[in-house]
Amino acid sequence: MCGIFGIYNSPGASLQTFYGLHALQHRGQEAAGIVTSDFDAEKDRRVFRIHKGLGLVNEVFRNEEIFQKLSGASAIGQNRYSTTGSGTSLQNIQPFAVNYKSGNLALTHNGNLSNQRTIRQKLRDDGVIFQATSDTELILHLIARSKAESQLEQIRDALTQIQGAFSLVILTDTHLIAARDPQGFRPLSLGIKKPPGKKIGKTTGKLSKPLVPAETPEYIVASETCAFDIISAKYLREVEPGEIVFIDRNTIETGHITSSFLPKAPRKARCIFEFVYFSRPDSTVFGESVDKVRRKIGKGLSHESKLKPDATESYLTVISVPDSSNTAALGFVTESNKFGTPARLELGLIRNHYVGRTFIQPGDHAREIKVRSKYNTVRGVLKGRRIVVVDDSIVRGTTSKLLVKLLHEAAPKEIHLCISSPPIMNPCFYGMDFPTKDKLIAHQFGGNIEKIKDFLGVESLQYLSLKGLLQSVPHHAGETESDEYGYCTACFSGHYPVPVDNATTVKEEND
Amino acid sequence: MCGIFGIYNSPGASLQTFYGLHALQHRGQEAAGIVTSDFDAEKDRRVFRIHKGLGLVNEVFRNEEIFQKLSGASAIGQNRYSTTGSGTSLQNIQPFAVNYKSGNLALTHNGNLSNQRTIRQKLRDDGVIFQATSDTELILHLIARSKAESQLEQIRDALTQIQGAFSLVILTDTHLIAARDPQGFRPLSLGIKKPPGKKIGKTTGKLSKPLVPAETPEYIVASETCAFDIISAKYLREVEPGEIVFIDRNTIETGHITSSFLPKAPRKARCIFEFVYFSRPDSTVFGESVDKVRRKIGKGLSHESKLKPDATESYLTVISVPDSSNTAALGFVTESNKFGTPARLELGLIRNHYVGRTFIQPGDHAREIKVRSKYNTVRGVLKGRRIVVVDDSIVRGTTSKLLVKLLHEAAPKEIHLCISSPPIMNPCFYGMDFPTKDKLIAHQFGGNIEKIKDFLGVESLQYLSLKGLLQSVPHHAGETESDEYGYCTACFSGHYPVPVDNATTVKEEND
Amino acid sequence: MCGIFGIYNSPGASLQTFYGLHALQHRGQEAAGIVTSDFDAEKDRRVFRIHKGLGLVNEVFRNEEIFQKLSGASAIGQNRYSTTGSGTSLQNIQPFAVNYKSGNLALTHNGNLSNQRTIRQKLRDDGVIFQATSDTELILHLIARSKAESQLEQIRDALTQIQGAFSLVILTDTHLIAARDPQGFRPLSLGIKKPPGKKIGKTTGKLSKPLVPAETPEYIVASETCAFDIISAKYLREVEPGEIVFIDRNTIETGHITSSFLPKAPRKARCIFEFVYFSRPDSTVFGESVDKVRRKIGKGLSHESKLKPDATESYLTVISVPDSSNTAALGFVTESNKFGTPARLELGLIRNHYVGRTFIQPGDHAREIKVRSKYNTVRGVLKGRRIVVVDDSIVRGTTSKLLVKLLHEAAPKEIHLCISSPPIMNPCFYGMDFPTKDKLIAHQFGGNIEKIKDFLGVESLQYLSLKGLLQSVPHHAGETESDEYGYCTACFSGHYPVPVDNATTVKEEND
Amino acid sequence: MCGIFGIYNSPGASLQTFYGLHALQHRGQEAAGIVTSDFDAEKDRRVFRIHKGLGLVNEVFRNEEIFQKLSGASAIGQNRYSTTGSGTSLQNIQPFAVNYKSGNLALTHNGNLSNQRTIRQKLRDDGVIFQATSDTELILHLIARSKAESQLEQIRDALTQIQGAFSLVILTDTHLIAARDPQGFRPLSLGIKKPPGKKIGKTTGKLSKPLVPAETPEYIVASETCAFDIISAKYLREVEPGEIVFIDRNTIETGHITSSFLPKAPRKARCIFEFVYFSRPDSTVFGESVDKVRRKIGKGLSHESKLKPDATESYLTVISVPDSSNTAALGFVTESNKFGTPARLELGLIRNHYVGRTFIQPGDHAREIKVRSKYNTVRGVLKGRRIVVVDDSIVRGTTSKLLVKLLHEAAPKEIHLCISSPPIMNPCFYGMDFPTKDKLIAHQFGGNIEKIKDFLGVESLQYLSLKGLLQSVPHHAGETESDEYGYCTACFSGHYPVPVDNATTVKEEND
Repeated sequence: MCGIFGIYNSPGASLQTFYGLHALQHRGQEAAGIVTSDFDAEKDRRVFRIHKGLGLVNEVFRNEEIFQKLSGASAIGQNRYSTTGSGTSLQNIQPFAVNYKSGNLALTHNGNLSNQRTIRQKLRDDGVIFQATSDTELILHLIARSKAESQLEQIRDALTQIQGAFSLVILTDTHLIAARDPQGFRPLSLGIKKPPGKKIGKTTGKLSKPLVPAETPEYIVASETCAFDIISAKYLREVEPGEIVFIDRNTIETGHITSSFLPKAPRKARCIFEFVYFSRPDSTVFGESVDKVRRKIGKGLSHESKLKPDATESYLTVISVPDSSNTAALGFVTESNKFGTPARLELGLIRNHYVGRTFIQPGDHAREIKVRSKYNTVRGVLKGRRIVVVDDSIVRGTTSKLLVKLLHEAAPKEIHLCISSPPIMNPCFYGMDFPTKDKLIAHQFGGNIEKIKDFLGVESLQYLSLKGLLQSVPHHAGETESDEYGYCTACFSGHYPVPVDNATTVKEEND
Repeated sequence: MCGIFGIYNSPGASLQTFYGLHALQHRGQEAAGIVTSDFDAEKDRRVFRIHKGLGLVNEVFRNEEIFQKLSGASAIGQNRYSTTGSGTSLQNIQPFAVNYKSGNLALTHNGNLSNQRTIRQKLRDDGVIFQATSDTELILHLIARSKAESQLEQIRDALTQIQGAFSLVILTDTHLIAARDPQGFRPLSLGIKKPPGKKIGKTTGKLSKPLVPAETPEYIVASETCAFDIISAKYLREVEPGEIVFIDRNTIETGHITSSFLPKAPRKARCIFEFVYFSRPDSTVFGESVDKVRRKIGKGLSHESKLKPDATESYLTVISVPDSSNTAALGFVTESNKFGTPARLELGLIRNHYVGRTFIQPGDHAREIKVRSKYNTVRGVLKGRRIVVVDDSIVRGTTSKLLVKLLHEAAPKEIHLCISSPPIMNPCFYGMDFPTKDKLIAHQFGGNIEKIKDFLGVESLQYLSLKGLLQSVPHHAGETESDEYGYCTACFSGHYPVPVDNATTVKEEND
Repeated sequence: MCGIFGIYNSPGASLQTFYGLHALQHRGQEAAGIVTSDFDAEKDRRVFRIHKGLGLVNEVFRNEEIFQKLSGASAIGQNRYSTTGSGTSLQNIQPFAVNYKSGNLALTHNGNLSNQRTIRQKLRDDGVIFQATSDTELILHLIARSKAESQLEQIRDALTQIQGAFSLVILTDTHLIAARDPQGFRPLSLGIKKPPGKKIGKTTGKLSKPLVPAETPEYIVASETCAFDIISAKYLREVEPGEIVFIDRNTIETGHITSSFLPKAPRKARCIFEFVYFSRPDSTVFGESVDKVRRKIGKGLSHESKLKPDATESYLTVISVPDSSNTAALGFVTESNKFGTPARLELGLIRNHYVGRTFIQPGDHAREIKVRSKYNTVRGVLKGRRIVVVDDSIVRGTTSKLLVKLLHEAAPKEIHLCISSPPIMNPCFYGMDFPTKDKLIAHQFGGNIEKIKDFLGVESLQYLSLKGLLQSVPHHAGETESDEYGYCTACFSGHYPVPVDNATTVKEEND
Repeated sequence: MCGIFGIYNSPGASLQTFYGLHALQHRGQEAAGIVTSDFDAEKDRRVFRIHKGLGLVNEVFRNEEIFQKLSGASAIGQNRYSTTGSGTSLQNIQPFAVNYKSGNLALTHNGNLSNQRTIRQKLRDDGVIFQATSDTELILHLIARSKAESQLEQIRDALTQIQGAFSLVILTDTHLIAARDPQGFRPLSLGIKKPPGKKIGKTTGKLSKPLVPAETPEYIVASETCAFDIISAKYLREVEPGEIVFIDRNTIETGHITSSFLPKAPRKARCIFEFVYFSRPDSTVFGESVDKVRRKIGKGLSHESKLKPDATESYLTVISVPDSSNTAALGFVTESNKFGTPARLELGLIRNHYVGRTFIQPGDHAREIKVRSKYNTVRGVLKGRRIVVVDDSIVRGTTSKLLVKLLHEAAPKEIHLCISSPPIMNPCFYGMDFPTKDKLIAHQFGGNIEKIKDFLGVESLQYLSLKGLLQSVPHHAGETESDEYGYCTACFSGHYPVPVDNATTVKEEND
């Protein structure tokens, strides 16, 4: 997964991009990069400036000097999360910046192309060389090889040839371009930051003065709206599934945003897991507040669960696995109380804020130490109690098992595990880092919940049903149950909305 | 402030210390160091191995090679938080390791000596040279200059000469020594990790196998017990105020821990702020669970607050400033409901996990960007509501003011701020990083709550009373209200339990 | 300029390449890189491993871990010297490694293509994207786009399309390939390292045991033979101008080296400046010992110079600018004595060995400090004497002027400057880092030696004539004076042996 | 060994010190440090600023920011060469900067104290703690513990208590102080840099303008005068053996340099090895040009050698091991020709300029690769010839043996090795990094030259006699043969001019 960001017409564009990527850090921690477009007076032409590296955003962009070099009023950037174990190689860090017949072009991609094998083979046969192993490089070649005259048409031409999940931010010598695949797998939003005189609603006016003085608006695109908040920009709307948005000088002057649409897909297929786990709760994705959806998920889970206080308790003790499950746990407790089951949210697990990429000695206990580094129990809360633990999902099961073990050391009477999503039975070919089937715990036990429960060592295990999950997310006009209300649920249901070429091996191809 | 840690008789002592320091990372983020005691077969004598550096624990100890060099079965370490703006200089990173007439000695210190000026002057006059600016170096000189014959007596001799706050962990060629000042300002706990065969209670037995195989127990000392949990060690007890604990081969073989006591202080003076903010909620400090105390603090705050739902509300919407105020907010809500004021905890603020030592462009907006990097609001939770915000304390007031501003952008109807501690009116001379009086917002406004409220821009402001705070913390036998139940409350009350020489300038002396 | 190296069938190929690049360090100090070809058992296919970075070879390859990652029995590498002031960008560090229809391919290039503009334009129009700015990337695209079936034919096909200077080392999944342009501008030699049992002549047998045990020979290519010596390999022969050498498994087993030749050029055009300055004196380039040629150059300079001891001297005091002019100065002195002019070589200038990429504060005196950091005078040798200073060449004139100033401070009576090459009047378009015409001191003064002499502040200035230079270098069969004996002398004579497209701007294109 | 430097009254003192240390880089490559004395207006007192690190000078001081922090008009610095195999630990990098009763004091030391064990034991007994293992720390304690009132008297007091080799540069809040031990083991010189208006002799006036504008002179001290040249300062005189030089504001204003003398030693004992190898040939040490002495050494070696051309030769082919033996080889050749033995200097060995601290894979061939990285032969010069190789000294013999092997590969007819110094039979206790007796090749073979010759594999081996060496160095008034003309020759003769306490182990004590 990745976090992508772009900004147009901003003094200090690279610094704004840095803040945006910082807010999107949860979407990828392995590498980060920023490309700016600048006018080089000495060379009398536009040049692209690049800085990329392995590590967190604040490790890659660690001093002011870097920003001085990244001059220019437009920029795009990415946080990268490699899906392979071997990590991101330098060649694969995005954005990719190239020069071709229509000038400079930089591109960053969140998603995964499902027809990459076919395209790659065709390009190879045509004499294309590949410097990276990621599918993103393919898009660049398709653009450069397009016979279309204008750069905008070349981009559109290329995007009609690719399938699968792609949210893109592209920078050219003249434009900032944002695009989403017709199914809308990954989120992408448009924002604006207006100059101080021209107030944007009431609240912004409270800021003493803007971070960057300007007399014209700045336009921003980002995977999630939390990247707008950090730079005091305002959310405008989603980039629509299949939409290509073009921002240029004219947009700045007239406020008019030009759009083009890719051929319509039979159905939308937004990644429902963005709501379950991936996106930040303070973001708006797919046009909806993540917090709100997660609250509903918790409510649904509360209804599906059969848990009641036992004879010794006056209420259910509910704890969340912080921080990803906090909202669902809160929804669970609120709903329980509302419908007659007394419940209380307790802080039974503490998360260490300084867990990063800690050096861990390899060996048997590495994963255990990692869990112990990240979480600690509050014994006073847990000891002797029946506890309901709300967690977001179970993938391989190893971390869950270790977490349960950690909880057991605090000597609770019983542990009841409630999961905010259905069992993950299938890999994702659209960008989520789920392993192959044989490593998914739910698949291993053939979806037998009882066996998973025993494996984890808990007294009971409750997954949210797919139906319950689909009821928690926003439904758009015209989207029906038969289309899963416009969501991709492949990891749960096995319904892959877009065919995947050579699905068994495509995971390896993608870096 | 600092986190200190020591371990004796542990294969891989340095790695265990690393994990311990990692758990104590919240006590200091500027520098870290580990010293091990090892037998050098080639030199046929014991040697101390040292690795120290600026940065977080996982930045300073970033690869396995470092641990290979840090061989030896005993180790001590520290996380350091510099109290001066200029940061920690390399010379001041602890532990300090020296060689003197009785052999090697390494020492690490959490606290602040109140008679350091007097001691320093005397030592200077006697021809002592100082390589660091911290008060910790003074202790080393006092030990080396003691006329006592045995090393243990030299240490005792030195500790009788110093006043103020000191929790110490000392490593010699033969011993691991832990000591606390007679008032017990800073916490320090003893732990043990027994070999697998010799089970320590029921829960430990659940661990598949120990991190480090051994046939004799390992002894551990740490500022907080969360450092025991991460290495699966068991909490034994506090090092007592005024106690010097000596651990050596004999302790390992017999299980007998030798103690010596410094002259008794007129009263104990545990830092009450450790409970309010500094310690992790999953730790036990001063013999009590921090979580439990913070829960009581929240309850007390709920009682003192006059807040009720207004006509438009069916319950109070309470949000915490994560993560430090989560427990108090939970206590607030639980108590409110118990005593008839309906209240609900909501997640209105999200904390970014990746905030570290982010590069921030200097300038007007640096602090604002820092607050925006750390927190984000959940608009759906806040918009149009009266919200009760629970925070732990207000020091300078600048961060609180920016946080209020951030909350305002999410357009709540009203903001009511509840603080889990009394107004901070006085600087701390015992190790807490509070600035001089004139920078304390409560002091600036002469303790006028109304004015502070206006300055922050909230509808109401409620501090917990000192009385309420003292009722939330554990009282030990013989401790009375006149002695503030054995706690130091100087930052609130101005009652300094130990005199400070040249108090107005001593802050500068301490690095 | 660059140093290039390749090795085939060597256990520890990357380490051998490191040593080879180390010996070639003088050919480029800005960046270095190594690519190895390895069989990845897990992926069941060949993979290329890459490590590149800015800096000297021992800075880029600074620890053993790097070599452990660079596994594989074949490797190629490069030292890079950027010809632009702005330095080498990361994208331009070689070798370039790509994947295309015929598998993996890595390439490194010493030289400069003279028809790069034409090729680039054509490729751009065909939809090719460029990630680097160097001309080397063009060769990769030409190979990948060739319609030829076999990889070897694709390479040959590509090389027929490029013009100018190119010595290439290419690594594929099966071959190590070396090639030189038909004019033979840059040197490239073939070497072999035989297994210990199979002795290679008498001297090698004296080595106790080989660096890498092997039972089959290792083949090596390198810009200069000093790279063979450091790894105890033996010089076989030059790669011929226009030759493409293919080394594979068959070569190892049979000892047979396969060659193919590009269409013959009207004349050869070896860079004569390699002999004057660039190559190391202990190398063999263009089939001749550099030391031997430089000795002859010094002899020729002695004949052309009119210098005699004056009345107060019994012999000429000759000093060299170390270390590049040592050999020529020695030849000068030997020849002088032989033909009746008593002369003595003296060490009047000492070169500091630790001059590297020293931090120099920008400003007026930066260049002066650089000269002072690099050279120091021996006053006792210079004071009061007439000195003859032998230097290799004068490009911009600024360093020479500062060197003369430095010598003046040691108070010699007179300074007579003898230069081992003719005046540099023209830029080089074949890879030597000479600036544009207007920055060449000889061009600035219209070739007026008297004016250059005055500018430098010396008593006399003697350049070696072009004729004298051409008499010092080896002449091959069939090469005549009209073809300048097969050498390129463009920088002196303006005779460009290969046309340059858009010569006035091509310098900027080349990174 | 070390290079030490100090400067007083210089704008940009730290940058000047950097250049000075750069020129002294050959005296130590393991670590470097600079301390400046600055007035901190905010603290209203003088502060010392420190930057130290492992590596070459340009690695430790790698950017301008470092110099901005090292503000202040006075500075001292050191290049350090550790004498133990384990390398320099961070604690031992000089200068040492401390604070004591008389203020700040920083000190750097070249040499080795011969009574360090006695002093250390006494100080330990008195309760002193040691943070480093070097003898230099002892001097600081002696100063701080002196009962003398003035700082200058304290320093003098301390220096009377230490014995052995010490050249010191000390910086206090008010003074720059330079001192040498009474025997004068290590060199130390005084220099001056006058403001532009006040010309210093004729030559300096030729400089366009000074690096640092000033209206008062800057005073400089340095191990060798090459450090003066690089910053365009002028050599004034040696610091005399036993002299303590005090430079302060008064010196600047009046030009008067205050001196004090330590009790006179029975005889001087300048390290004769400084002339043989250690100092740069362009330096003046002990009041004499190193180049001049080395020339004489070469002449003496020519006389002692019995080498003549054989029947097949018309002259002797002499090559030097560059660069350290260049001057001696030149002297050898000149003298040979003068006295009837025709001889020619040839460049048969080339030294690679980029050898630094190259990564070398550990193992059997590490040392061989090191020699091969450093030197390369010129086969055309050596092949089939009888060659006379001039080298400076033989310590362990391993490098010489490998060098001979390397020369043999170039197939000379015979190798005759001439060494510019007598056999090294004894370790040095005064700062030169010679190993213990059993590792000295001359000692191993009991001084039997024939056996050493066979071990090295040369046709003949000629050492310069001690008498010949002593005739090559300057003799001062009153110095006689019985006192070895005021030189220390202990490594050759075993005459240790100052007793060494516990000589067998003292090598380990010294870092």
